[in-house]
Order: sequence, then C-alpha cells, then structure tokens
Amino acid sequence: MKKVAIIMGSDSDLPVVKGAVGVLKEYGVPFEIRVMSAHRTPEAATAFAKGARENGFGAVIAAAGKAAHLAGAMAANTTLPVIGIPVKSSTLDGLDALLSTVQMPSGLPVATVAIDGAANAAILAVQILSVGDASLAEKLAEKRKAMQADVVARDNALQEKLDTL
Amino acid sequence: MKKVAIIMGSDSDLPVVKGAVGVLKEYGVPFEIRVMSAHRTPEAATAFAKGARENGFGAVIAAAGKAAHLAGAMAANTTLPVIGIPVKSSTLDGLDALLSTVQMPSGLPVATVAIDGAANAAILAVQILSVGDASLAEKLAEKRKAMQADVVARDNALQEKLDTL
Amino acid sequence: MKKVAIIMGSDSDLPVVKGAVGVLKEYGVPFEIRVMSAHRTPEAATAFAKGARENGFGAVIAAAGKAAHLAGAMAANTTLPVIGIPVKSSTLDGLDALLSTVQMPSGLPVATVAIDGAANAAILAVQILSVGDASLAEKLAEKRKAMQADVVARDNALQEKLDTL
Amino acid sequence: MKKVAIIMGSDSDLPVVKGAVGVLKEYGVPFEIRVMSAHRTPEAATAFAKGARENGFGAVIAAAGKAAHLAGAMAANTTLPVIGIPVKSSTLDGLDALLSTVQMPSGLPVATVAIDGAANAAILAVQILSVGDASLAEKLAEKRKAMQADVVARDNALQEKLDTL
Amino acid sequence: MKKVAIIMGSDSDLPVVKGAVGVLKEYGVPFEIRVMSAHRTPEAATAFAKGARENGFGAVIAAAGKAAHLAGAMAANTTLPVIGIPVKSSTLDGLDALLSTVQMPSGLPVATVAIDGAANAAILAVQILSVGDASLAEKLAEKRKAMQADVVARDNALQEKLDTL
Amino acid sequence: MKKVAIIMGSDSDLPVVKGAVGVLKEYGVPFEIRVMSAHRTPEAATAFAKGARENGFGAVIAAAGKAAHLAGAMAANTTLPVIGIPVKSSTLDGLDALLSTVQMPSGLPVATVAIDGAANAAILAVQILSVGDASLAEKLAEKRKAMQADVVARDNALQEKLDTL
Amino acid sequence: MKKVAIIMGSDSDLPVVKGAVGVLKEYGVPFEIRVMSAHRTPEAATAFAKGARENGFGAVIAAAGKAAHLAGAMAANTTLPVIGIPVKSSTLDGLDALLSTVQMPSGLPVATVAIDGAANAAILAVQILSVGDASLAEKLAEKRKAMQADVVARDNALQEKLDTL
Amino acid sequence: MKKVAIIMGSDSDLPVVKGAVGVLKEYGVPFEIRVMSAHRTPEAATAFAKGARENGFGAVIAAAGKAAHLAGAMAANTTLPVIGIPVKSSTLDGLDALLSTVQMPSGLPVATVAIDGAANAAILAVQILSVGDASLAEKLAEKRKAMQADVVARDNALQEKLDTL
Repeated sequence: MKKVAIIMGSDSDLPVVKGAVGVLKEYGVPFEIRVMSAHRTPEAATAFAKGARENGFGAVIAAAGKAAHLAGAMAANTTLPVIGIPVKSSTLDGLDALLSTVQMPSGLPVATVAIDGAANAAILAVQILSVGDASLAEKLAEKRKAMQADVVARDNALQEKLDTL
Repeated sequence: MKKVAIIMGSDSDLPVVKGAVGVLKEYGVPFEIRVMSAHRTPEAATAFAKGARENGFGAVIAAAGKAAHLAGAMAANTTLPVIGIPVKSSTLDGLDALLSTVQMPSGLPVATVAIDGAANAAILAVQILSVGDASLAEKLAEKRKAMQADVVARDNALQEKLDTL
Repeated sequence: MKKVAIIMGSDSDLPVVKGAVGVLKEYGVPFEIRVMSAHRTPEAATAFAKGARENGFGAVIAAAGKAAHLAGAMAANTTLPVIGIPVKSSTLDGLDALLSTVQMPSGLPVATVAIDGAANAAILAVQILSVGDASLAEKLAEKRKAMQADVVARDNALQEKLDTL
Repeated sequence: MKKVAIIMGSDSDLPVVKGAVGVLKEYGVPFEIRVMSAHRTPEAATAFAKGARENGFGAVIAAAGKAAHLAGAMAANTTLPVIGIPVKSSTLDGLDALLSTVQMPSGLPVATVAIDGAANAAILAVQILSVGDASLAEKLAEKRKAMQADVVARDNALQEKLDTL
Repeated sequence: MKKVAIIMGSDSDLPVVKGAVGVLKEYGVPFEIRVMSAHRTPEAATAFAKGARENGFGAVIAAAGKAAHLAGAMAANTTLPVIGIPVKSSTLDGLDALLSTVQMPSGLPVATVAIDGAANAAILAVQILSVGDASLAEKLAEKRKAMQADVVARDNALQEKLDTL
Repeated sequence: MKKVAIIMGSDSDLPVVKGAVGVLKEYGVPFEIRVMSAHRTPEAATAFAKGARENGFGAVIAAAGKAAHLAGAMAANTTLPVIGIPVKSSTLDGLDALLSTVQMPSGLPVATVAIDGAANAAILAVQILSVGDASLAEKLAEKRKAMQADVVARDNALQEKLDTL
Repeated sequence: MKKVAIIMGSDSDLPVVKGAVGVLKEYGVPFEIRVMSAHRTPEAATAFAKGARENGFGAVIAAAGKAAHLAGAMAANTTLPVIGIPVKSSTLDGLDALLSTVQMPSGLPVATVAIDGAANAAILAVQILSVGDASLAEKLAEKRKAMQADVVARDNALQEKLDTL
Repeated sequence: MKKVAIIMGSDSDLPVVKGAVGVLKEYGVPFEIRVMSAHRTPEAATAFAKGARENGFGAVIAAAGKAAHLAGAMAANTTLPVIGIPVKSSTLDGLDALLSTVQMPSGLPVATVAIDGAANAAILAVQILSVGDASLAEKLAEKRKAMQADVVARDNALQEKLDTL
C-alpha cells in the first residue's frame, strides 16, 4: 500500500497534527511524519517532495500556520496530491493560514481542508488511496456507517434526557 | 481509467467550470459534467454521489457559489475524494463560498481549491488518479516541465524588452 | 398548535440550542428536538424535513457550526420556514457558520438569526406561529412589555447606584 | 389572506426590492410596498410597525443598506415576523448591512436572508403564511418542483452541448 | 454648562461605559446616564433623544453591541451630535457593532469612536462642549500635557531598567 | 461663527470631499479647505492643527485613504473635535482607512463617519457648532424635516407607479 | 553600488511591478528584473536567492498575488533584506496576498509594503541602500522635499479654484 | 556600526517588543529603545525621526497597536528604512494595526512584519545593516544554519517518540 507523508512546519503543530496520525493508524495506512519547514529547511522539504512518489508515497499532508507556505512548497516539487492543513496561530484565527494554503496559482493545487482539520486531512488521504484500493473503500464505508450510528445514538440519548433541558 | 465527475450547482457556473473541462481533455481523462444542486435537486445529487464509486468515478469535483453546500453534500454521500471549487458571486468576493466549502466538520473532508480555481480542481483530480496510474503521473511531470519552460520563456522575453519598461 | 422542530448537527451544539428550548417552553409551544446532521446522517435529515409539514410542524430551527449546511439541507427538503442558527466554533468566530447559513441561493431561503442566537430563533418560530394564533400573538406582546419593564427597572437601578460609578 | 409589507429605507433600493414584488405577485399574496426610513422617518416607520398586525399583515420585509437598522426598527415595534434584506452598497460589499441586520440582540429576532436576497425574502414570507394556508403550501411545493425541473432541463441542455465545451 | 447624556443599550455594557463616566467627572461636566434600548424601549429612547437639546444636553453618547442601532436611533431623533461606542460582544470581536454604528446613511451622522472606546467618547463630548467653553478647552490642553508628561516619564522609567530587558 | 477646516491628504480625495463643501455652504458655515498630508507635509499639518482653535475653527474634518493617519495626526495636535472621513481606495474597499481612522488610542478620539461619508462629516461639524448656536440648531431641524418630507414624497411617488413594478 | 533584484511570480504582475522599475531608474540604482515563481520554477528562484548577496545585490523585491509565497521563498534562501509586494488579484482584493506575504514565521522576515505598493517597495530598497550610501540618502531627502512641494502646490491650486467647488 | 532604534507607542507594548531587544543583543547590534507616541508625544517622535540618520541610526523599528500610526509618523520624518510591528490589542486580533501600518501611501514605505512579529523586525534591521557589514552577514548565515539544525533536531526527536503519538 502507498504511504502517506505528514509534514509539519514546526513541532509546535504536533497537537493539531496528531489528529491525522490517529486516523491513519485506524485505517492501517502506513505513514511517515516529519518536521520540515518551507522556510527554515527548504532544501530538505524540496528533496522530500521531489522523491515522494518514487519513495512509495501516495499523498502528502502538510500542516502550517500564519503565512503557511509548506503545502504550496510541497506541491511545487511533486505531482502527488498535496493536502494542506491551515493551522490556527495566535492571531487572525487561522484566516492567514487558510488563505496562504488554499489560494494557490493555476497549475499547482493544494487540497485544503478546514482550519486545524487534521483528521479530515488524513481521511482525505485515505479516500485518495481508496480509489485504487477496494479494501480501503470498504473501511471508509464502514467508518461512515459507524459515524451515522453514533449520531443516531446521540439523538436517542438526547430524547432520554429531554426533561432535563 | 476512472472517470472524473464535474458537478455544478447552476449552469451559470459554467464559465468558471470550463477551466476544469479543458484540463481533463488535455490529460485524456474521461469525465461527466452535470448540473445538479444540493438545494434544488438534492435527490439527484444524493443519488449521483451514492453511485459514483460503483459507476466508475475516481473523484468528484463540485463547484458552487454563496452558501456553497454542493461539495459537502457530495462528500456526505460518497467516500470518494470530493474536490470543491468555491465560486465567486456578486457579493463578498467568494469568501462565503470558500468558507462554506472548506470548513467541513470532522469525518467529511472536501478538498478545497482556490476561489474560481477550476483548472486546479481538475489537476488535483488527475493527481489523485495518478496515484495508481503511472502514465498520468508521467503526463503530470511533463506538463510541470512545460509550465517551467513557459516561465523561463517569459523571463527571457522580459529581458528582451527591458528598455521599454 | 403546530410544533416546532429543533435540529442540531451535533449534540455538542446543545449548550447553545438550550436557549431555544427554554423559550418554547415559556410560550407553551410543543416541540421536538433532534440530533441530525446534513453530512453525517443526510438521509435522516432529509426524511425529517420532507415529512415535517405533514407531521404537524410549523417551523424548523436548525443549528450548526463551521460549514453549516444543516439549515440549508432542511430548506431544500421542506417548504416550511426554516430558521438557521449559526453556531460559533473554535475558529473564525462564527463567521463561517453565518455565511454558510445566510447566503442561500435564490429559491431556498433560510431565516438566519445572530451567531449563537438560539433564543431569537425560538422567538422567531413563535412569531411565525403567531400569524395564525391570536393567543401566541398576545403572549408575545406581553413578553415584549415585560422586557421593556425589565429595561426600565435596570435603568432605575442604575440611577440608585450613580454614586458608585 | 394576510398581507405582506415590503419596506425599503430608500427608493434607491427598489432595483433590489423588485425581486420580492415579483415573487409575491407570482404567489398571489397581497402586499403593500413603502419607502420608510428608520433614520429619516422614524415615526412613520414605528407607526407602521405598531399597526401592522391589526392592519392585516402577516410578515414584514425590510430592505436597507450600510448600517441597516430598518428591519431591527420594525422588529422593535411589532411581534410579527420581520424579514431583513441586507442591501449591498458602494463599500464593504454588503457585509455592513448583513451584520447590522442579523446580529440582533436577544428578544428581537430579524429573519435575515442573503445580501440582496429579495426573492428569498418574499419566498420566506410566503412560507410563513403557508403555515396556516394549505393552498400556499401547495403552490410552494409546485414551484419547488418546477425549480427542480428547470435544473434538470439545464442539465439536459448541457449534455447536448458537451462538444462545445 | 451643557450636560452630556450617556445611554447604554443594556446594563451589561456598564463595565465598558464606566470609562466615559470617569472622564466626565474628571472634567466636571454634568451628565446623565441611562439604560435605554433602541430595540427594547424604543419609545423611551426616542423621547429622550427628541427632548435632549431642550433638556440642556450638548452631546449624546450611545453604547451598544452586535447590531448596534442605539446611536443611530438617537441620531434619528435629535440634531445634537451623537457619539457612538461600538461594544465588543461574544462574537466577531466588535466588528458588527463598529459597522452598525459607523456606516450611517447620508444625513444622519454618528461620531464613532474605537470599539469599547468609552473614554474617548467622553473626551470627544468634552471637546464638543469646549468649542463654546474656554475653560474646558484649557482643561483639555492641560490634560493633554499631563498625558505627554506621562509618556515621557514612562520613557525615562524604561531607560532605567534597560539592563533587565 | 466658528469656521470648519476641511483637510484632505491628497487632492485626489476632492471628489469625495466635495460632499462636505456642499453641506457647509448650504448651512452658511464658513470653512477653509486644505490639502495637507500627515505623511508628506507633516509640519504643515501639525502647525495647522496646533493653531486651529485660536484661528477661529470649531471643528476639523480630515479625509484620507489607506493607512489613513491624517485625522489622527490632527487630533494629536489640537483639542478641537476632529472628524475623520475614511476614503475608499483601490483595494480593501475602505476597510483599511476605516480602521486606521476609528481605532484611535485612549486620549485622542477621532469622530469617525462612514467610508466616503463626507456629507455626514460636514453635518456633524454643523451639529457641533449648533451646540452653542441656536440658529444652526434651527436650520438642522428644518433640514431634518425637509429630509423627512422627501422620503414621504418618494413613498408617495412609489405608490403612483405600483403597477409598473 | 549594490543592485536591487525585482522578482515577479508571473509576467502578468508587470503592470504593478513597473512602478518599482520607474523609481529605481529615477534614483539611478542598478537592478535586475526577473520572472521566477516559487511554485513553477522553485529551483531557479532558490538559486537566484542563494546567490543574490554574492552577485552584488543589496535587496530583493518580490511581487506575487493570491497565496503569495515568492517573497517568503526568497527570504528562506538569502539573508539579504527581502521586500514583499502583495499583488491584488481577481478575488479577495489582495487580502490573501497581504497575509501570505506579511505573516512570516519567526526567523524569516519579509518587509511587506502595501497591496500593489510597487513604488514603495523600490523606495524602501533605496532607503536600505542609503544606510551605507550618503549620496542616495541625499537624493531621498531631495525627493522628499519635492514631494512636499508638490503637496503645497496642489494645496495652492485648490485655493485658486475654491469658487468652483 | 549603525544603531537600531526601537520605538514603542506605549510601554504596554514592551512584552511584545522585548522579542526585538533579544535579537539585537544576540547580534551585538547597538540599539536605543524609547517610548514615544505619534499621538501623545508627536513632537518628540518627530524630532527623534528627523535626527535619526545623523545620530547614527541605520534603521528604525516602530511598534504600535490599533490605529497604529507610529511607524508611519517615523517614516514621514526620516528617509531611513522604518520597520513596523503591528501589535495585537484587545479587539480585531491585530488586523487594525496591520492595515494601519502596511497600507502606507506612495512615497513613504513602512517595512511591515507580522502581527506581534518583534523578533522578525529586529532580524530585518540586522539584514539591512548587513548590506554594508560582512560580519553581520556572516552571523546571519550562521544563525540561519543553527535554525536549520534546530528543525532537523526536532525532526529527529519526533522520530524517537513515534510510538507515543
């Protein structure tokens, strides 16, 4: 199975990024997780992206905050799908990271998920791998059903405690 | 080869969406293009999404403006990767469509591209298919090189006309 | 009397939504409260909306955060008035939910109230029912007077403690 | 049948507001349309709102731009449902009018529709009246079906011209 | 001397508004402080504004949050200068109140100060009264000098502790 | 009678600022109009502000766009009321000028009007002068009545052409 | 004298960037102007930045729109001062480019000027060179005086045509 | 070596500004740090800026919040490069300070760094001085390498604790 790369611009992003790790483990998708910065270690980041496809990766997840260039820098150096997680920082509530990640110029898409949306980034990576992997597709469908069951259970639980509202 | 679905919420989005059609033709990727609305024809949209994987699609592109729910509605009904194009409308410069598309709840990602970024949506779809298709990966790499050559050519052209600046 | 439906996308919205429950109880308006998600349980949500009018509802209140599609999904499946409560989440201060709820395309209005404005959503529902129910209209007028009296009382209380300012 | 009031803060809002007039005529809902300003003619606006219910109105639509207080001023003086249309003006793309209309304090809701969403304001008014009027409910359902048919027709038309894309 | 009116839409605004009270006391300017709401007690607010000039007021300060209509409602009913304080509430960081206060239509200005800028609202009121009152003008000039001296003192204090930076 | 100063940061602001000139002429208020820049001619601007009160001015209107510091620079150098007009420029729709003008630090208020709100700036200046000038107060009241009559006339005109809507 | 580099991400930015060229010619500062993209030609951009200091450059100006990473990519590869011009594109009024340029992480500043502020970028480059070049400092002072004289001239011209306002 | 000036509008900005002090000490660059306000002590600020070049400064850093005019006021009175730090205050998350600092009119650039980006402001000042100072250039390059090594170390540390994620 193809691997998924999770790159974060700073290890301070780890609390957010952990959400992606959990999902990939849940689906049994092999992954590597790295701290590499578009700005601080541009050569390492470039080299990683350039070799990603031949090194067995099927998708690259990049998480960064503020002027979040990491996903874009990845996308500039691989033709694999690159998924961007805009990370909220101390100002502007993540809007800077969102716009820096999503507003890519023509030719170099970044598949952007919600601000701090690490779990969704990983699910998107699994969905991408599932296009050529029926067993992953099946797991996604099962997980979707479990999610629905959970909502139904919560709805039922709510009905039980109507009097307390 | 898997097909790509292009869904637009209104045929008034066609001028934007055409950018995606051109890219898919360029790469020789089969596609279907449909007008279906999360709000106006929710059943048709739901049915399309539910059947997309078994009908041979590998990715779904959804374009919509304002309170842009189309991509999210697709994502709710398929486990294929769904790519969202936020379309700029007459007010708010596309910010409403961007936030409505990208800020999806946990469990249901939409791979969001730039406002009116139809070409990038299609390139992302090709990248997704390329994970399991070496010839598409090669075409993407060639196209990338051509894009670089184009920038170099424009840089050279600029040097020629320095006196006129 | 017609019932009011209160739908929330996640039971994590309950602290906000409780404000609506209190108002409906105060007015003696019958209601049902449900956890149903446009994204996680789209079929349940659709079925509920489709049957809402014949099941005796006069208005549907839908509360959701982020890319808040729930009210829009309700509106797509019923011709009853649908009231949307944009719920503030961890980023963007509710602006994403506000725009996702209010910027509906032509043909499918959502009556949007303030961010986290659950009490107002319920009052609006009562106002809607009051169009055909003189006793509700009277209760609304009484409550309005009480609200005015409360402001006057607070104004008077302020005059008492002028020296402490 | 109850009437619908359409109030605009300035006759310069008429090009937007016309969209509401058309809808009400289509549904055969009686209406009055007035130019009254929360700021310029506050007494007339107040008097109109105070008498609206007893004068046979079932809903009040108010359209205004910039610091759009008209809907709020209506809501302060009637317990009928008040629908607000934020009108885009020369700066800020309607965001000022949207926030001025929707962010009402607790106790006084304004049912806000999209920026310049006059048709939706009228449809919402019809939906409100339909709670107690089965024939309006039926017309709304028919219109909804026609809207769906229109989308399907546009989808079919698109398939016809696929070659030209 | 003319009096200054301080009106707040809710007594929950008192913590902000206190900043204005302190300034007026400091300058020895007589004032009245009231809780009156454009939405909850529109008649009281209107009556107050209509009588303000003949009741000896020279300026009206109005503080409100969210869809902050209070200053505008005052301005609609008096030709005295009306000063608006946009109050920050639980969402949108005061932007809603700022736009609702400042973006007044032609003919009815509101002299808007910074979000939560109560002290400045009071200083502006004093400045307005100082146009016809030389002793207030003098006090303003003295206070300005004291403010400058304070900055100089803080600059000096900073130089003392340079080693600790 | 006190004079009003109208300062603009650039003569390119004249099309906006003209709206203020017209109002002052209408009220017969003497004025001076100057091009002076907080950034380009800071000494001239400072000197003007410093001398404004003794030179017979009762209020200073300052109009500027982008990082609009002119009103703030005036306020730093006079204790007269300073009225700021944020001018819309080619980007950001005037939001930059609005925030640069209104968000003044404690101690130095700028009475900010709407973006491009030159007429309102002049009316506010007249209102300020009217605090000590009964004849101006009377003119303001008359003008207010005329404005009301105009709205009524437009309302009547609208009723005449109802058939054409 | 050190040279200034002007890099633009696309030759479509040339109409904006020309403003910088004019200024540098005016000051007689040698410059090179290049089309290089952080995304499309990352290696060329990196190589240019890496060699900039030893190739005789004293400052690098980078202009880009949307998710504007060019200035940041330059800054990541040189320790020369890098000046960023956020370029306005078809959506979001340049806010995306501004945030993508200015919100750089700690360690890698980009000296950001106003949206489309190419002339200011060049003046800033001249100011940087002037720190070690007294003749440039003198030219800057002269130009500043000329700018002041121009404002004074425009002020005088305005006084001439007061009657026509 | 030229000195760097650090000016803050209020000593309440010191917690942010300290980040700049630390960097300058690290590089051994002489500096002065002052509390001076564009609004409260405009003459002192003007005088400082006017004399900055002849007093041996090579760059001026100015930090201010809200309607942040300090950097602009500095830029208006010196032709040295002026670096602006927009400081986040209690509302609007620093957006007001950012726009007030960066959107300078043509002719008077402010080299703006990220909101609260004091360390970057100081690094930019060092980069400016490094244009004419090879030893500073060398230190910058060393520091850059150390920063890269730090990222690599953190990446390695992350690999060690993969099991704990």
